[in-house]
Amino acid sequence: MTVVNGYEQSDREEKLNIIDLPSLEAEAKKIIPTGGFGYISGGSEDEWTLKHNSEAFNHVQIVPRALTDMEKPSTKTNVFGLDLSTPIMMAPAAAQGLAHARGEVATAEGVAAAGALMAQSTYSSTSIAETAAAANGAPQFFQLYMSKDWSFNESLLDEAKKAGAKAIILTVDATVDGYREADIINNFQFPIPMANLMKFSEGDGQGKGIKEIYASAAQKISADDVKRIADYTDLPVIVKGIESPEDALLAIGAGAKGIYVSNHGGRQLNGGPASFDVLADIAKAVNHKVPIIFDSGVRHGSHVFKALASGADLVALARPVIYGLALGGAQGVQSVFEELNHELEIDMQLAGTKDIEAVKHAKLIKLHY
Amino acid sequence: MTVVNGYEQSDREEKLNIIDLPSLEAEAKKIIPTGGFGYISGGSEDEWTLKHNSEAFNHVQIVPRALTDMEKPSTKTNVFGLDLSTPIMMAPAAAQGLAHARGEVATAEGVAAAGALMAQSTYSSTSIAETAAAANGAPQFFQLYMSKDWSFNESLLDEAKKAGAKAIILTVDATVDGYREADIINNFQFPIPMANLMKFSEGDGQGKGIKEIYASAAQKISADDVKRIADYTDLPVIVKGIESPEDALLAIGAGAKGIYVSNHGGRQLNGGPASFDVLADIAKAVNHKVPIIFDSGVRHGSHVFKALASGADLVALARPVIYGLALGGAQGVQSVFEELNHELEIDMQLAGTKDIEAVKHAKLIKLHY
Amino acid sequence: MTVVNGYEQSDREEKLNIIDLPSLEAEAKKIIPTGGFGYISGGSEDEWTLKHNSEAFNHVQIVPRALTDMEKPSTKTNVFGLDLSTPIMMAPAAAQGLAHARGEVATAEGVAAAGALMAQSTYSSTSIAETAAAANGAPQFFQLYMSKDWSFNESLLDEAKKAGAKAIILTVDATVDGYREADIINNFQFPIPMANLMKFSEGDGQGKGIKEIYASAAQKISADDVKRIADYTDLPVIVKGIESPEDALLAIGAGAKGIYVSNHGGRQLNGGPASFDVLADIAKAVNHKVPIIFDSGVRHGSHVFKALASGADLVALARPVIYGLALGGAQGVQSVFEELNHELEIDMQLAGTKDIEAVKHAKLIKLHY
Amino acid sequence: MTVVNGYEQSDREEKLNIIDLPSLEAEAKKIIPTGGFGYISGGSEDEWTLKHNSEAFNHVQIVPRALTDMEKPSTKTNVFGLDLSTPIMMAPAAAQGLAHARGEVATAEGVAAAGALMAQSTYSSTSIAETAAAANGAPQFFQLYMSKDWSFNESLLDEAKKAGAKAIILTVDATVDGYREADIINNFQFPIPMANLMKFSEGDGQGKGIKEIYASAAQKISADDVKRIADYTDLPVIVKGIESPEDALLAIGAGAKGIYVSNHGGRQLNGGPASFDVLADIAKAVNHKVPIIFDSGVRHGSHVFKALASGADLVALARPVIYGLALGGAQGVQSVFEELNHELEIDMQLAGTKDIEAVKHAKLIKLHY
Repeated sequence: MTVVNGYEQSDREEKLNIIDLPSLEAEAKKIIPTGGFGYISGGSEDEWTLKHNSEAFNHVQIVPRALTDMEKPSTKTNVFGLDLSTPIMMAPAAAQGLAHARGEVATAEGVAAAGALMAQSTYSSTSIAETAAAANGAPQFFQLYMSKDWSFNESLLDEAKKAGAKAIILTVDATVDGYREADIINNFQFPIPMANLMKFSEGDGQGKGIKEIYASAAQKISADDVKRIADYTDLPVIVKGIESPEDALLAIGAGAKGIYVSNHGGRQLNGGPASFDVLADIAKAVNHKVPIIFDSGVRHGSHVFKALASGADLVALARPVIYGLALGGAQGVQSVFEELNHELEIDMQLAGTKDIEAVKHAKLIKLHY
Repeated sequence: MTVVNGYEQSDREEKLNIIDLPSLEAEAKKIIPTGGFGYISGGSEDEWTLKHNSEAFNHVQIVPRALTDMEKPSTKTNVFGLDLSTPIMMAPAAAQGLAHARGEVATAEGVAAAGALMAQSTYSSTSIAETAAAANGAPQFFQLYMSKDWSFNESLLDEAKKAGAKAIILTVDATVDGYREADIINNFQFPIPMANLMKFSEGDGQGKGIKEIYASAAQKISADDVKRIADYTDLPVIVKGIESPEDALLAIGAGAKGIYVSNHGGRQLNGGPASFDVLADIAKAVNHKVPIIFDSGVRHGSHVFKALASGADLVALARPVIYGLALGGAQGVQSVFEELNHELEIDMQLAGTKDIEAVKHAKLIKLHY
Repeated sequence: MTVVNGYEQSDREEKLNIIDLPSLEAEAKKIIPTGGFGYISGGSEDEWTLKHNSEAFNHVQIVPRALTDMEKPSTKTNVFGLDLSTPIMMAPAAAQGLAHARGEVATAEGVAAAGALMAQSTYSSTSIAETAAAANGAPQFFQLYMSKDWSFNESLLDEAKKAGAKAIILTVDATVDGYREADIINNFQFPIPMANLMKFSEGDGQGKGIKEIYASAAQKISADDVKRIADYTDLPVIVKGIESPEDALLAIGAGAKGIYVSNHGGRQLNGGPASFDVLADIAKAVNHKVPIIFDSGVRHGSHVFKALASGADLVALARPVIYGLALGGAQGVQSVFEELNHELEIDMQLAGTKDIEAVKHAKLIKLHY
Repeated sequence: MTVVNGYEQSDREEKLNIIDLPSLEAEAKKIIPTGGFGYISGGSEDEWTLKHNSEAFNHVQIVPRALTDMEKPSTKTNVFGLDLSTPIMMAPAAAQGLAHARGEVATAEGVAAAGALMAQSTYSSTSIAETAAAANGAPQFFQLYMSKDWSFNESLLDEAKKAGAKAIILTVDATVDGYREADIINNFQFPIPMANLMKFSEGDGQGKGIKEIYASAAQKISADDVKRIADYTDLPVIVKGIESPEDALLAIGAGAKGIYVSNHGGRQLNGGPASFDVLADIAKAVNHKVPIIFDSGVRHGSHVFKALASGADLVALARPVIYGLALGGAQGVQSVFEELNHELEIDMQLAGTKDIEAVKHAKLIKLHY
């Protein structure tokens, strides 16, 4: 265990025997300090949206197909011009030093080892360059929380480019922090600095709450901002936090090269729909103009399958990965991805879908559950 | 603590650290005597309607909008010609001396301090004039339970006018008391007199049950009564306890200048719909002819948002405020309003609605939950 | 306490303070022996239908109406040419000696004291004449379980007529006993004879299970049987156990002068619909040709209201009454009826319905619960 | 008790007093070792589909019919040219030696004693010939897990023919094992050999997990395989594991003489629909071209009734039978079948359906549960 500013960070490093992703939470809770665990696991208000993010997958069912003359389905896919061994990717998530002493560096190693795509957050515990280096050549995306200070945005975009990021994920659903009760109860303040903030005037986040950190970011975001960022960087810009066809089209109009459907894991607006429940309508509006990334509530192979069959090109998740990080470091992260991909492979075989393209055309039905 | 006729009244006075409004109930239960708590918290029959008043908000979801180019949303609004800093108001509620020694006087102080609108009940523990004075210039409404004795009605209307009330809320859904099991179990009788009843022949309520108090009020109310009251007073008359488009139109036809959609917090007819579930249809029928106040089940900022987006102009609540009153007096009341308004502000920002007018036009969707 | 064949019968006689009817069950369970309680309370198979009989009332809601210019609603009604002070009646139920030493005699006294209509079962613990005498002039119906022995049917019909019964309720949904698990677990056999069976060759039921008793009754019932009974007696014949428009029309075609919608309180076919859920469609088919009696799951005043507003002319119940019988004898029975009628009166006032005719035309809505 | 390779097999032999089939599970759990019980009872992933297999029956209701002039309904039926005394049959299920020392031999005896149809699995603990002999002339079906080794398939088909099997059930939904968490948690490996695998090169299954056993079977199955098997054997081939109209028609086109609708008891693809929920649509597509067998979730007589009324010709189940096998050997199996058939007879009488043909035309309704 590593102790930083009185906060006890896990430094475990081992493969995990994972039964399923939901069971990781209780194990991780034992070793992540209360404040950090509340920050990672919590949602906003009464957590209705958080809870329904996962439950919503039960509203549609995969029709199992037999007699499909296939075996050994492949989870390989090509999105954003990248050859990936799985459509499951790491969602950008802040402050992974809360879960493990090596933070995003270990996450990036584990994700790369699993052949998956990594996305790192502006508010990561390790710097863009450090995290990127850890991936050892595997593709990475960089997530941007827009600052009020435009030069800061430019320097982050420059640094991401330099570090080899393949795309920019611009988060637009966090102009203020959601009403996260766990953080309020724990009076949570980040015990560990955020590496990318260190060199800037606004402070490195240490000793601050998420409220203050978001407050120093842009709280007024428009399609023009998307355009400005898209114009500045030659990396594709993916707009994250889209929950309506309207915003998806606005973003594409402004130059977005990808749409990231997400309700921030139920951490921002509570009382909104489960993210999965709006996916199909957004995909219909996007109509294959750009790829779609989806997150919020993904815990099972069947969830990944249903998201792909509802219009997603990549399916992201964060909390279970961070629990794996706490429990096993880079190897734990790898175990989480391998487990979920293994479940997906089984589901693909039993649904009679030989590859990701077939999954996208699989038959879902909506019964009265 | 103050003891009146053996009833122990809280006399706390302090700001509260409120996580959310639902959590106040358990705290308040510890300090409000059993009979008083049962009267305040209880609903009628098996409380199906009470329970669904809050659950109904889950039936529609707020679509979060990003890229809306806004920040620092304003909760200011103008209703009934009054400039208000929030659309959240205090619902009229009887006998607040059950929760705190200073009763409605403290409530009025707290509501005014939070910049919100106060409504006091005919059956308040403190008199119209006392309560009004406590608001120190902030706007107040007076709620009338019509008496069989018309001169009593006139004198209350006169006194309300004299005390500066800006509108009369005429309650029409309580011609008999709902079947409130907690009051029956506790054999509850008001231990504290009702100030406005003191000077009248019917007794001041002390030692009586709600059944007897309602029995002395009018049990036969028609559109003609609304008209008679509207004709008598030059204050706008808002008819409270409307749950159908039919009654809304009847009331407007009789001269009502506002419609108050409410099922009395599930305390009157059980087995009726959740109040939120009939709001949109009533608003459609009212069609902006007069403003709409809504109450019943409001506990979260997202509830306020959904009610506004479904046609309400003002959103009222009582129980959580009364719990705040018990726990912190006027300051506790202020804390409750500030907490709820804070949640509303966050929801407005995350829904991309810069002001109350925008909230009223926000997109709600109805999924299969 | 009275002990008969080792079975301990209550002989209590007192008024009850009833909070609500559902709470009677737990109290009654304490004093009714296990076998008897299982027989009375149990349903068939996994009790899905039993449970949903009561839950189904939540599927529609009463729209509360104000401004209706009424007070003191009247529950008086006239059905089958009888002036009744309430539309709530006693459902025919077997073997009430299981609950109280005085059995149906006490029930009849209590029902009459409450001004309600009594129906006694073929399988009652007391004889037709005894039970009828106890009603002291109040109206009574007699329920017939058709025997394979036609002379037995005729003698019961004759006796009922002689005892002053105003109608015959012919049960047609019990040609075999439902799969009642409690009776199987308890290996339940009636410890007390059934008075009406005493003078006949088939035995008086004592020491038999419900399976054997039903087996001695007719297990093959057709519209012709209805006709034969209707032709034999000059009392109106009401056919009980109807759950479909088809059977209702068949029965009317065969001479039925009333339709009794019931699924036998969930004691016969499990996996069928809640009785309330088929009421409106049957009422539509019957189209006021004959009156409709409804039972199954009625526990609250709002249930009675909803059944009347869905097409019933009389609303019956048995279990809660039998619990009242066990707990308070004739006075307990009276208390149950008075409590339920009191709840109905409150609901009528709050729904703005001045009499039973108005209840029948009240507006119900069906929301998404 | 018999101990084989450290695994404790029941050797009980007695009639069971069964209240209902669901209650058998807890009793059986006490005597079947953990690994075996997990293998038998478990489903895949979070068991949503397993759980909904039984719950789905609540989505439709049987309309009870009276006045139908019938008694003593007959459960006799003729399917696949076989006269059967009940439409309830034993589903093929592997490795019944896990539940009882005599395995499928005892099951076959019990099923035959109950007059029902037996199906034995490729992966049975006893050999085709042994199991067939135990049935003592009663009809049996043989279930084939297709091997990659075609000669193995031929020899099994030959042996089944020789043993007198009346049909071949070809399973097509198990080209890989579902993600069964109980087996993973228990690290379950079959302690007992599978008799039919003994004489072949691939090993007899002992010491292997289900994953390895399925892996040695064909993992690529097409309509051509159905055709090849149908061409090889002159027994009718029934294709099992169909959950869509598309696969049903493909199978029939390839020569299937029966369709077996099943999701493998929720043990294969989780996140798919309850099997009952797709039955009616498949039956519509099959349109009586060939008979339909149904399984998955059947626990009550009303479930059997609803499946028949939704298009099934035979209704199969396995888990409750295997629990009966553990608790009472052949006699226990017989008790399970007799109990379920008894419940079915009651339901038939109360629904007014005199025979299985009438059940198939019974009226079901779908309410809002």
